[in-house]
Amino acid sequence: MPLIAETKTLRISEPLALQSGAVLPSYEIAYETYGELCADKSNAVLICHALNASHHVAGVYVEEDGTVRAKSEGWWDNMVGPGKPVDTDRFFVIGVNNIGSCFGSSGPTTLNPETGRMWGADFPVVTVEDWVNAQAALLDALGIAQLAAVMGGSLGGMQATSWAMQYPDRVRHAVVVASAANLTAENIAFNEVARRAIVTDPDFHEGHYHAHDTLPRRGLRIARMIGHITYLSDDVMNEKFGRRLRQLANDVTQASTGPERDFQFSTQAVEFEIESYLRYQGDKFAEYFDANTYLLITRALDYFDPAKSYGGSLTAALGQVKASFLVVSFTTDWRFAPSRSRELVRALLHNQRRVSYAEIDAPHGHDAFLLDDGRYHSAVRAYFDKEVSHER
Amino acid sequence: MPLIAETKTLRISEPLALQSGAVLPSYEIAYETYGELCADKSNAVLICHALNASHHVAGVYVEEDGTVRAKSEGWWDNMVGPGKPVDTDRFFVIGVNNIGSCFGSSGPTTLNPETGRMWGADFPVVTVEDWVNAQAALLDALGIAQLAAVMGGSLGGMQATSWAMQYPDRVRHAVVVASAANLTAENIAFNEVARRAIVTDPDFHEGHYHAHDTLPRRGLRIARMIGHITYLSDDVMNEKFGRRLRQLANDVTQASTGPERDFQFSTQAVEFEIESYLRYQGDKFAEYFDANTYLLITRALDYFDPAKSYGGSLTAALGQVKASFLVVSFTTDWRFAPSRSRELVRALLHNQRRVSYAEIDAPHGHDAFLLDDGRYHSAVRAYFDKEVSHER
Repeated sequence: MPLIAETKTLRISEPLALQSGAVLPSYEIAYETYGELCADKSNAVLICHALNASHHVAGVYVEEDGTVRAKSEGWWDNMVGPGKPVDTDRFFVIGVNNIGSCFGSSGPTTLNPETGRMWGADFPVVTVEDWVNAQAALLDALGIAQLAAVMGGSLGGMQATSWAMQYPDRVRHAVVVASAANLTAENIAFNEVARRAIVTDPDFHEGHYHAHDTLPRRGLRIARMIGHITYLSDDVMNEKFGRRLRQLANDVTQASTGPERDFQFSTQAVEFEIESYLRYQGDKFAEYFDANTYLLITRALDYFDPAKSYGGSLTAALGQVKASFLVVSFTTDWRFAPSRSRELVRALLHNQRRVSYAEIDAPHGHDAFLLDDGRYHSAVRAYFDKEVSHER
Repeated sequence: MPLIAETKTLRISEPLALQSGAVLPSYEIAYETYGELCADKSNAVLICHALNASHHVAGVYVEEDGTVRAKSEGWWDNMVGPGKPVDTDRFFVIGVNNIGSCFGSSGPTTLNPETGRMWGADFPVVTVEDWVNAQAALLDALGIAQLAAVMGGSLGGMQATSWAMQYPDRVRHAVVVASAANLTAENIAFNEVARRAIVTDPDFHEGHYHAHDTLPRRGLRIARMIGHITYLSDDVMNEKFGRRLRQLANDVTQASTGPERDFQFSTQAVEFEIESYLRYQGDKFAEYFDANTYLLITRALDYFDPAKSYGGSLTAALGQVKASFLVVSFTTDWRFAPSRSRELVRALLHNQRRVSYAEIDAPHGHDAFLLDDGRYHSAVRAYFDKEVSHER
C-alpha cells in the first residue's frame, strides 16, 4: 500500500512584507503532509524544494476510481515515507510549494486578487527569506511552534539554512544537502544565460505571454538544457551517453554486433545520444514549467547571501542560530561543490553549533541529492534516528 | 617597430573532397605569413585556429597612412613574433583561416561561385580532416613539402594532431595545447545548447538570414555567453567577478568606502558584474561572428574522433604518426582537462613517439592557452629552441 498524497491549499490573509519592500496582501500556499502530528506537535519536519519541484514530496496520487495515478511519485519519495530515512511513521512531514512557483501556491500563473487577472510578470520578486516567512505563516496556521527539522537540497538547503537564522527558536535541526551559503559567479552566470534565453525569446512578450496566448518555449528549452548539463557530472555524462550516436530509424549498421554508423554530417540533425537526451528534457520542461517562475526562482538563488549584511562574514551571519545541522555534499557536484558545504560547516563550528557533515563519494553530480544512494540515505537515516528523534 | 601583418588570399581550383562525401569544386584560403622561409623551406610552422579566431595570428595591421590600426594585434601575438616563443626571426610562421569560417576563407558568408549567391546555410559541413587537407593544399602552393611544426590550441590542437596522422611525412613536430583527441559528452552538450539557441532564433531563417536582411543575434549572444562560462575556471570567475554588484549610475552607496548597495530586486536588471560581462561579450560577438560558421565549427569539434575508425583505440589511430609532440594542458581547464591531454600522451608513448608534456598550474581555465603565462611560454620556447630548431 503506497503512501497516498493529497494536496491542500491554505489562503493566508495576513500580508507578507517582502524583502524587496513590496507587500503581498494575501496569498495561497499549496502543501501536503505525511504522517501524524503528535500531541505536543514536536515531530514536524518541513521539506523545502529546489528550482523546479513542488510541495509533492512523497507518496502518490490516486484517481477518483481509487487507482494510483501513473508516475505520480513525489520528487523525494525515496527519502520520505513510511520506514524511509525521513520516516513518516514517526515524523509529521510537510511539503510546501513556494510562492512565485507554478504548482499551486500564489505565483505568476495564479490570479492577482486585486486585478482579477493572472499575475504574469507582475508577480513580485521573492527571496529565500520571503519563502521562509511564508512557510512560517503556514506553520502558524497548522499550530506548529517549532520544527523538529527543516530539510532541503540545493535551493531547498538554502531555505533550511535561512530558517535556522530567521527563526532560531523554531528549528531544532537543519538538514542541508548539496547546497551553499551563496552562489558562485559561475552559478550566477549559468542562471543569467538561462534567463536571457527566456526573456529574449520573442514569445516572452515582457512576461505577458499568456495574454498573447503563447509560451516562450524556445527560451525554456535552452534554460533547461543548460540546467541539465550542470546537474550532471562530466563522469556520469560520459558513462550514460559518452560519444554514442543515436540509433537512426532503419539503420542496420548499429545493430548490436555491427560497427557504429557513420556521421550524418549535419549541424542540426541529432547525431549523439546526449543531444537527443537534452532536446527531450528541454521539450518536456517547456510544456509544464512557467517561464516567469523560472526567472523568479533563479533570481532567488542569485540573491541568497546571508553573509552580505554581515560584511561578508558567514560566521557572523550564523551567530544567532540555535539549531543543530546535518550537512551533506557530493564529491562530483560541481554546481554546489563540497568546498561550499565545508564553508557552512566551518562557520557553524565557529559558532559552537553541533554539526554532522557527510561528504558522499557519488558519481552523479548535483543530481545525486535526489537519487537513492545507500551511504547518503544511511547518513540521513542515522541523523534522524539518533539526533532528531532523540530530542522528542 | 611592431610586426606588420598582411592578409593574402589564395584561390585553390583543385576540388576538395570532403569527409561527408560532398566536394568543394574550388575555394579560397585567407592566410598570413610572418618571418622568412629559408632556402631549403625547412622552417615553416603552421598555426591552426580554434572556434572564433582567424589567420591573423600575430602582428598588427597598418592603415593606408602607415599608422598602426588600434586593437589589431593577432590572437596569438604573445606567442608568435620576433623573439617570442615561436620566433619569427627563425621560423616562417603561417596563419590560416579555415574554410567554413567567416574571416576571409570560403565559408557561409562568401559567394558560392556556382550560384553567384552567398553560401549561407548551404556551405557543406567540414571536419578537422577537411581543414587539414585544405591547409595541405595551401602548403603545396607555397612549395612547402614538410612543416617544422604544426601548432594549435583547443580545436587548433585537434588540427595539429590530425596533421600528424593524415600527413605523417609532412610534419616533424606537433604542438598540441589545451586540446583532446575527442570531445566529452559534456562538451558536445554545451555545443548542442549553443546550436539550438541559434537555430531556434526566429531570425535564423533556416540559415538564410542574410536573404532576410537580419541576423540571429539572440541565439549568437546565448551561444557566446555559454562559451565564455566554459572557457573560464570557477576560481578565476570568482576572483574576477565574484558576487560583486555592478555599480549603478548615480549610486553613492557603492563609493569606495561605503557599504555595498542593496539589490534592485529585478529578474532582468543587471545586478552582478558577471552578468554585465557576459551580456557585453554576447552583444559584441553577435555583431561580428557568423551564425552558420558557429554551427559548422562546433560540429567539426563534435565530429573529431580519430579513434572512431580504429574501434575506439587512440593508440591504433596514431600508429602511422612520425612527428614528435609537445602536449600542454592547464590544471583548471575543465573543458579540455589535463586528463584528456594525458590520454594523448599515453597513446603516443605506446607508439614509441617522442613526447614532451607540460601540465601548467594556471588559474585561468581553458582561456589559459591564449594568455601570457611565464611557465607555459617557457615550455613552448624551450621546445622550439631545443627540439624544433635542432633538426633544421
